[in-house]
Amino acid sequence: MSARIDLNADLGEGFGPWRMGDDAALLDIVTSANVACGFHAGDPDIMVETAAAAKARGVALGAHPGFSDLRGFGRLRIQESPRRIERDIAYQIGALQACAALAGARITHVKAHGALANLSNEDAAVADALARAVAGVDPGLTLVVMPGLAAERAGERAGLTLVREIYADRAYAEGGTLAPRDAPGAVIHEAQEAAARVVRMVGEGAVFTLGGRRIPVAIDTVCVHGDNPEAIAMARAVRTGLERAGFSLRPFAQSSARSSAAS
Amino acid sequence: MSARIDLNADLGEGFGPWRMGDDAALLDIVTSANVACGFHAGDPDIMVETAAAAKARGVALGAHPGFSDLRGFGRLRIQESPRRIERDIAYQIGALQACAALAGARITHVKAHGALANLSNEDAAVADALARAVAGVDPGLTLVVMPGLAAERAGERAGLTLVREIYADRAYAEGGTLAPRDAPGAVIHEAQEAAARVVRMVGEGAVFTLGGRRIPVAIDTVCVHGDNPEAIAMARAVRTGLERAGFSLRPFAQSSARSSAAS
Amino acid sequence: MSARIDLNADLGEGFGPWRMGDDAALLDIVTSANVACGFHAGDPDIMVETAAAAKARGVALGAHPGFSDLRGFGRLRIQESPRRIERDIAYQIGALQACAALAGARITHVKAHGALANLSNEDAAVADALARAVAGVDPGLTLVVMPGLAAERAGERAGLTLVREIYADRAYAEGGTLAPRDAPGAVIHEAQEAAARVVRMVGEGAVFTLGGRRIPVAIDTVCVHGDNPEAIAMARAVRTGLERAGFSLRPFAQSSARSSAAS
Amino acid sequence: MSARIDLNADLGEGFGPWRMGDDAALLDIVTSANVACGFHAGDPDIMVETAAAAKARGVALGAHPGFSDLRGFGRLRIQESPRRIERDIAYQIGALQACAALAGARITHVKAHGALANLSNEDAAVADALARAVAGVDPGLTLVVMPGLAAERAGERAGLTLVREIYADRAYAEGGTLAPRDAPGAVIHEAQEAAARVVRMVGEGAVFTLGGRRIPVAIDTVCVHGDNPEAIAMARAVRTGLERAGFSLRPFAQSSARSSAAS
Repeated sequence: MSARIDLNADLGEGFGPWRMGDDAALLDIVTSANVACGFHAGDPDIMVETAAAAKARGVALGAHPGFSDLRGFGRLRIQESPRRIERDIAYQIGALQACAALAGARITHVKAHGALANLSNEDAAVADALARAVAGVDPGLTLVVMPGLAAERAGERAGLTLVREIYADRAYAEGGTLAPRDAPGAVIHEAQEAAARVVRMVGEGAVFTLGGRRIPVAIDTVCVHGDNPEAIAMARAVRTGLERAGFSLRPFAQSSARSSAAS
Repeated sequence: MSARIDLNADLGEGFGPWRMGDDAALLDIVTSANVACGFHAGDPDIMVETAAAAKARGVALGAHPGFSDLRGFGRLRIQESPRRIERDIAYQIGALQACAALAGARITHVKAHGALANLSNEDAAVADALARAVAGVDPGLTLVVMPGLAAERAGERAGLTLVREIYADRAYAEGGTLAPRDAPGAVIHEAQEAAARVVRMVGEGAVFTLGGRRIPVAIDTVCVHGDNPEAIAMARAVRTGLERAGFSLRPFAQSSARSSAAS
Repeated sequence: MSARIDLNADLGEGFGPWRMGDDAALLDIVTSANVACGFHAGDPDIMVETAAAAKARGVALGAHPGFSDLRGFGRLRIQESPRRIERDIAYQIGALQACAALAGARITHVKAHGALANLSNEDAAVADALARAVAGVDPGLTLVVMPGLAAERAGERAGLTLVREIYADRAYAEGGTLAPRDAPGAVIHEAQEAAARVVRMVGEGAVFTLGGRRIPVAIDTVCVHGDNPEAIAMARAVRTGLERAGFSLRPFAQSSARSSAAS
Repeated sequence: MSARIDLNADLGEGFGPWRMGDDAALLDIVTSANVACGFHAGDPDIMVETAAAAKARGVALGAHPGFSDLRGFGRLRIQESPRRIERDIAYQIGALQACAALAGARITHVKAHGALANLSNEDAAVADALARAVAGVDPGLTLVVMPGLAAERAGERAGLTLVREIYADRAYAEGGTLAPRDAPGAVIHEAQEAAARVVRMVGEGAVFTLGGRRIPVAIDTVCVHGDNPEAIAMARAVRTGLERAGFSLRPFAQSSARSSAAS
């Protein structure tokens, strides 16, 4: 019996007349899609169409809430209160649930985007706001987190099912966080190298730091990108690498038992 | 055994630092609240707080979707496709469902706002978009409509539970639509006059036209306003008038059997 | 001495992280750029950078105001009052003037976008609002219009300098308006055909209808597009065709005497 | 010959259907108005109407740019780059210049709003962005600053005419900054007390700290508020106090010589 793993990517990141990334290509590669909900990207048309496309390919659907900041694509830090953050996340999850319903689909998970994700990994109050929003809307939703950071602990406090993710194209710092993008070797640009790293990390249940240290972590899903043709090629290489290594690629929603056991 | 009637009003029509109307006063008068969902008014903070306040007073909660037009307060006609209208309405309903969930509440109904409501009463394609959105998100939601117009027929086609409303402060044209605001006598300004008219309309199950004609219609709810102290006084007079006439004021969600029988 | 002609295109039509069209390629082809001002596309970063790029290549800079509708890209008709339209256009012109000033540039003209342009060609009240906005902000600004329609007459009433444009890729209806896009032959897709038509129209000072009629009009500028590689190729072919036919390509701001004589 | 002083207030802080403060009352009290430019409040209708009302009463008109954050009323800190801040401020100034032109008015000054103002007083890079935006759009515009903080120094570096302001309702900390709102005595609530303090500060050319220290500063204008009836009463008391003390109230645009001498 083969071990299971999930591949996730952010989709539906256009707005109005503008598109970002090659969603159709990504949907043939990943097993879970995180869909922008209209605050930093996405609009109801794109949300419904992305939900329909994901459903048609058996890709699991999740909400990808962010700060209300289209122009900054949710990457600017905004000094909002945790209470507002909780409510804004709930609003976005509910909006996607309804758009998914129009497409005959249901959402299974939530993953924070951009500056909101970064803050939820650093600040316990923001992390708790995220977890409360998810639990408040539907305690059956899975929360996608980076292992070892504030959002994971907040999700545990809230009793949520958690899924731990690693990044296919990023190296790790000694503390288990992502190495800063400007550190030498922090960003992997070569598809085969990324694929080999992912296979090793998933196979060993550990991430490897820039300094060569091995940190054991639970790994339920691998995040890939689709912003440009190189990213799509890398995502495909990661999938092929995992399949060749004998992993069975499936949405984590179907592998939550393993996820719980691992954590 | 007394006959039942519902009183509804639009609430939560502020945005950010701005407020509109006296929601606290209205919540002591009405039995159903239609809550703006962020497109023409309302934001997640206001939506959660309005849902909590309505729940605390036993007032039924509904979504009040409108065009995406904060500056025009949803009163400008925007030439959107029915498909986009359907998706935008679904998005708004889902957003309010999630905000209500944070307040421990559930929504029971949907009522279109402003230019979107007017279009849904005139244009069958828009009306069908509205009905499809409601049915697509949750076929158990009740749709509030004006009797005799396009939205009612679309709701029937979609198999939705319908609730028919009359306006406390408006006179009717010969065809059963609202008389244009600039027609003499079209807008009732005096609280006791409005109360007396409402009691008569609800009691007889009919609206009365400017020309004196009586048009029998099903009436499940009476719409009142809270934009200014005079409107609040009128809403209170209407409630008192109905109570003195022996009606039992309750959310229509509890009186849907009567609604179905009447239609 | 060679006759002069201007080539214009819409630029800066991105927003935040999203881009539209190949502005760099277009700036090597056209002599005038119409820059989106933040309402239907464009943001202050894009506006400053587009102004700087246009100035660096000697391309004249103009404002391209539209309806406040990012999601619909300014293509949806919104039933605004002429007064609001006038103010919204003024706001956008002023915003671009200031962004251009940061780039050391000045704007020379205004051309309406999308649904706003269409309405200004059909509705005298909207056309007057456009002309009043331009004249109110700076009566020295040139207004770009389609010859023979409402905006041209409004510009004349307001005493503005006018520049008449034809479209490189569109055929004309018998009344001198653009033939509807779905009419056979209404949209020219082939670059050399478009170039040949433009050379003939500019050379003869006339447009040609689908039915073969010749309508004499003043022609000061030719509108080309840059949305995709085919559009860029067509724009380049039009420029090359005009140059080979002996026309001198220059911004119309330098050819306003001819424009006035022609009208 | 009497000494001159200016009274300034923020106006036009509504949006769409919502209003904030009693602008009509304030315009009878102040000599300079800072007008919101559409990013944190204000829309083109409100901007034109506020400009017209200010002009009709001889009140000087200035731009009051803020972060792009209607819902947070420009009070949330957003981690934007200084470059984006510069461009956003320029955009807003230009937009108001054009709206003022429609009203036959011209703007004389710029004063930052909310979180943007706070950042420009703390962070030299943000302060320089503000000063560059003003100088880039029109070096003849006056910049309103709090004496002794980063924005003042940036304005000096940019060669701008500066106007120093004190707050009528706030006490000062030992370093010359505003005392935090939650410090005992930091906010003055009583109109006559505020008026007496202002007369003393303006008369002596100094602010007084909570601890009783006297810090000499140049004072060209006094900021008052109009959010509620109490604020209006305080603004009126401040004006009356200054008049009784023999000051001549005039827009600082007419008293710039004194301002330069004082600084």
